[in-house]
Amino acid sequence: MKIVIIGGEAAGMSAAAKARRSAPQAEIDVYEMSDIISFGACGLPYFVGGEFDDPGYMAEFSVEDFAKRNIRVHTGHQALSIDPAAKRVRVRRLADGEAFDVAYDKLMIATGASEIRPPLPGLDLHGVHTLRVMEDGLALRAAAARDEVREVVIIGAGFIGLELAEAMVRLGKRVRLIQLAERVMPDAFDAEITSLMEQELREHGVALHLSEAVTALSGDGAVQSVVTERGEYPADLVVLSIGIRPNTAFAADAGLTRLGNGAIVVNAYGETSLPDIYSAGDCAAAPHQLTGQPVYVALATGANKLGRLVGENLAGGHQAYPGTLGSAAVRVLSLDAARTGLSDAQARAAGFDCKSVLVKDKNHTNYVPSQAEVHVKLCYETGSQRLLGAQMIGHNGDVVHRLDALAVAIAKGVSARELGMMDFCYAPPFARTWDVLNVAGNVVK
Amino acid sequence: MKIVIIGGEAAGMSAAAKARRSAPQAEIDVYEMSDIISFGACGLPYFVGGEFDDPGYMAEFSVEDFAKRNIRVHTGHQALSIDPAAKRVRVRRLADGEAFDVAYDKLMIATGASEIRPPLPGLDLHGVHTLRVMEDGLALRAAAARDEVREVVIIGAGFIGLELAEAMVRLGKRVRLIQLAERVMPDAFDAEITSLMEQELREHGVALHLSEAVTALSGDGAVQSVVTERGEYPADLVVLSIGIRPNTAFAADAGLTRLGNGAIVVNAYGETSLPDIYSAGDCAAAPHQLTGQPVYVALATGANKLGRLVGENLAGGHQAYPGTLGSAAVRVLSLDAARTGLSDAQARAAGFDCKSVLVKDKNHTNYVPSQAEVHVKLCYETGSQRLLGAQMIGHNGDVVHRLDALAVAIAKGVSARELGMMDFCYAPPFARTWDVLNVAGNVVK
Repeated sequence: MKIVIIGGEAAGMSAAAKARRSAPQAEIDVYEMSDIISFGACGLPYFVGGEFDDPGYMAEFSVEDFAKRNIRVHTGHQALSIDPAAKRVRVRRLADGEAFDVAYDKLMIATGASEIRPPLPGLDLHGVHTLRVMEDGLALRAAAARDEVREVVIIGAGFIGLELAEAMVRLGKRVRLIQLAERVMPDAFDAEITSLMEQELREHGVALHLSEAVTALSGDGAVQSVVTERGEYPADLVVLSIGIRPNTAFAADAGLTRLGNGAIVVNAYGETSLPDIYSAGDCAAAPHQLTGQPVYVALATGANKLGRLVGENLAGGHQAYPGTLGSAAVRVLSLDAARTGLSDAQARAAGFDCKSVLVKDKNHTNYVPSQAEVHVKLCYETGSQRLLGAQMIGHNGDVVHRLDALAVAIAKGVSARELGMMDFCYAPPFARTWDVLNVAGNVVK
Repeated sequence: MKIVIIGGEAAGMSAAAKARRSAPQAEIDVYEMSDIISFGACGLPYFVGGEFDDPGYMAEFSVEDFAKRNIRVHTGHQALSIDPAAKRVRVRRLADGEAFDVAYDKLMIATGASEIRPPLPGLDLHGVHTLRVMEDGLALRAAAARDEVREVVIIGAGFIGLELAEAMVRLGKRVRLIQLAERVMPDAFDAEITSLMEQELREHGVALHLSEAVTALSGDGAVQSVVTERGEYPADLVVLSIGIRPNTAFAADAGLTRLGNGAIVVNAYGETSLPDIYSAGDCAAAPHQLTGQPVYVALATGANKLGRLVGENLAGGHQAYPGTLGSAAVRVLSLDAARTGLSDAQARAAGFDCKSVLVKDKNHTNYVPSQAEVHVKLCYETGSQRLLGAQMIGHNGDVVHRLDALAVAIAKGVSARELGMMDFCYAPPFARTWDVLNVAGNVVK
C-alpha cells in the first residue's frame, strides 16, 4: 500500500500521522514544497507582535520526528500534476529541478493556500509584505522591529489583517487598516459584531478605512505610500492580507471537482470526485454540518480534524467527518469575538427561513469585580427555533468558550427554547444565575 | 384564579413574575418568612470576603418592585401547614403571631432550605456562625472584619465551606477547614479533581483536616476552640457549613412524596404528588436529565429555571423542565472548577455501565503568554461512548465555560467520538487547534 500526501502542513501531517497509526505496514511519502513541515501559520501575528520569540513554536514537528515513525517527508518538492488514470503524481525536486513520477495507491492533496497578490502597481517594492509562511513572519518581524518604521498600512481586514493590526498597535506603530468591503471581517461576522470591532480598533488609534480600494503602492525602491481612490497615505511598511487562494492550480487538469476559488470539493469521507484521491485543509472545501454543501473554511481546526480523518481513510478506514460549523475566534485588542454555524446571510442563502436576535448582557454577577459586557447574536430557524448560527463579542475571554457551548448546541439541533433552559454552570465569579446564553435563548419568542 | 406561593427567594419570585406575565388576571400572593425577598445567598461568601460592600446586590428586587406588577408579597409570614383537600394553607403573621387560612387554586412550595445545625456542644457560643441568609452575611462579615479575629475554623467543605475558606484567606485569617468526609466536595467532584482543590487550599496556608469529626465547640461565652476526635484547635470564629436541609417540615403531614432528606419530589412539570401543588428550589427534588429520577441539587440555577417554569404552569401552562444536570462551578483561590452530569459513582448508582478518562492538557497554545494546565474528566457509557458526566479544573476561568459545552453535549447525548471531532473555536490566545475538549473525547477508545 503506497500512500502519497502532497503538502506537509496541518492537514497533510495530521493525515500522515494517523495513517501510520492505522496502517503500520503502509508506505507513506509526503512531498512538501517548502523546507518546513507541520507549520501553524496562526501563530504568525503573535510572533510578529512580539508575544513570543522562538519561531520554532510554530512548527511543532520536524522531518526527523516523522522519520522516526517511518514516514518519509520530502521537503523542497513541488507537485506538478496528477494523472488519476495512471495513479501517478509528477513531482519536481526544487534543488536540482529534476522532475519524476510518484505512484500511489491512495493520494491526499493537502497543498494549502497562498495569500492573494492582487495586480497592484508597486507590489514588489521593498517594505511590502504578506504573512503566510514562516519566512514571511521572520521578514515582517524584522522589518517591524526597526524604529524608523512608524507608519504601517495593512490592506485587508480579515482574521490576519485584524490580528496584525493588534500586533502593530502593540509594537507602538501608527496603524492604518484599509478594507475594500464596508466592514471588517464581513464573511465571518455580522454587522452588529463587526461594528464593535471597528470601534475597538479606532479607540486604539487605528485609522480604519472602509469601502476603500487601494489602487497602487508608491515609492522609490522602498514603499513610501499607499494610494487609494480617495487619498494617499504614508507607509513605511505595508502588509497585504486580502485573502487566500487554494493551491490547486497544479491539479487543474486532473478533473477534480472544485469550487470557483479552486478549492477541491470533498465529501464527508474527505474523498474528492476522483477515486482514491482525498483532500483536506486550506486547499479543500468540506461539507458544512448544517447544509451538507461544500464550503470553503480555511481554518487550522478543520485542517487538523479532516486531515486526521483522511489519514484513517487513506489507511482503509471509512470514517465520516461531521462537517464544519465554521467555528472561529479572534482577539481584537481588548475585545474577543467568536462565531459558529451560519450567519444570517449564509442561512438565507442556504434556504433557511430564519430570524435573529441580539442580546447584550453581562458575563457574571454585578458584585464580583471585572464584570464585562457580552453581546450574543443568535440566528435561528423560524418556527422550530432551531439554532443555526451564533456570534459573540466582549471585553473578556469568556465569550470564546461560551460560544463553544453554542457550537455543540448548533451541531445537535438545539432550539432557542432548549438553550433558554440549558443547565449551564453558575457561581458569582463566572456567570449570572441565568447565563447570558440562557438569556439569549429566552429572548427568542 | 388564586395563586399562592410560599417562599420569596429565587424559585418563588421567579414563579411569581412568570405567572404574572402568563396570567395577567390571576391573584398572586407570596408569603415569605423573612423580611427580604429574591435573595441570592450565592453572593454571601464574596460579601464576607470583601469583594463588594453593598449587601443590596444580593437582593435584586423589593416587595415594592413586585407590588408594581400586582404581585402581593407578604413578608414576615410563616406557613404552618397545608390542607390539600380544602386547598388551604395555614399561615402565621410573625409580627403579632396571628394565624389564618389562605385559600388557593394553585399552590407553590418554595420554602428553600436551612443550614443543618448538628447537635454539637457549644453551638450557641458567641463567634459561631452559619451562612445562609442575609443576616448571617452581615454578622459574619462584621465578625471577620475584627483584627483580633485571627483563627477561623470552617466546619464542612462543600461549596460554601470552600468559598468561605477562600474569603478568609483573602482577609488574611489563619484558616482551618475541617471535613468529616475523606475529601472536600465529595458529592460534586471526583477524587482526581478534589485532590487538586485540596493541594490549592494547603498551598494557600489553609490547614485542611479530612476524615475528622468535630465533637464540640469550646469557650466561655465566646468560642475559643474546636474540639475533634483528634485534637483541639484555637478558634476566634467558627463557621458551620456542613450542608442544608429542605424547609419542608411544615408540610410533613400534607401527604407530599418526599426524599429522605425531606425534599419534595416534583415531576418535569414541577408538580408534586398532590393535585395543584407545585414546588421548586432548594426545598424540591426535580428529575435528573439523564436518569429521570428525582435528585436533590440545591443550586440557584435550577431554582430560577424550574421556578420560572412552575410560574408558567401555575398560570395554566404545561411546560416540561428538561431536568437538572447538576451543572455547577466553584472558585477555590486561584483554581476554577466545574462539573456537569453524573459523577462516576452517580452513573454507576443509576445503573450505567460506564468508564472514565482523565486528561491533562493546556488551555491554549504554548506561545501565547499565560498558558495554564487544564484537567478534564469524562464519564461515558461503555460501548456507545455516550457522555454521562464531566468535570474540569484549572488555574484559569476558561474551564467553567468550556465545561458548559460539555453540559450541552451531555444534555444532547453526544458521544466521546463526536466530542473529539466537535468544531470548537480556535485562535492562539484561546485554545489549541485540538481543543482540550477534543483531546479528552479522542482519548476515549
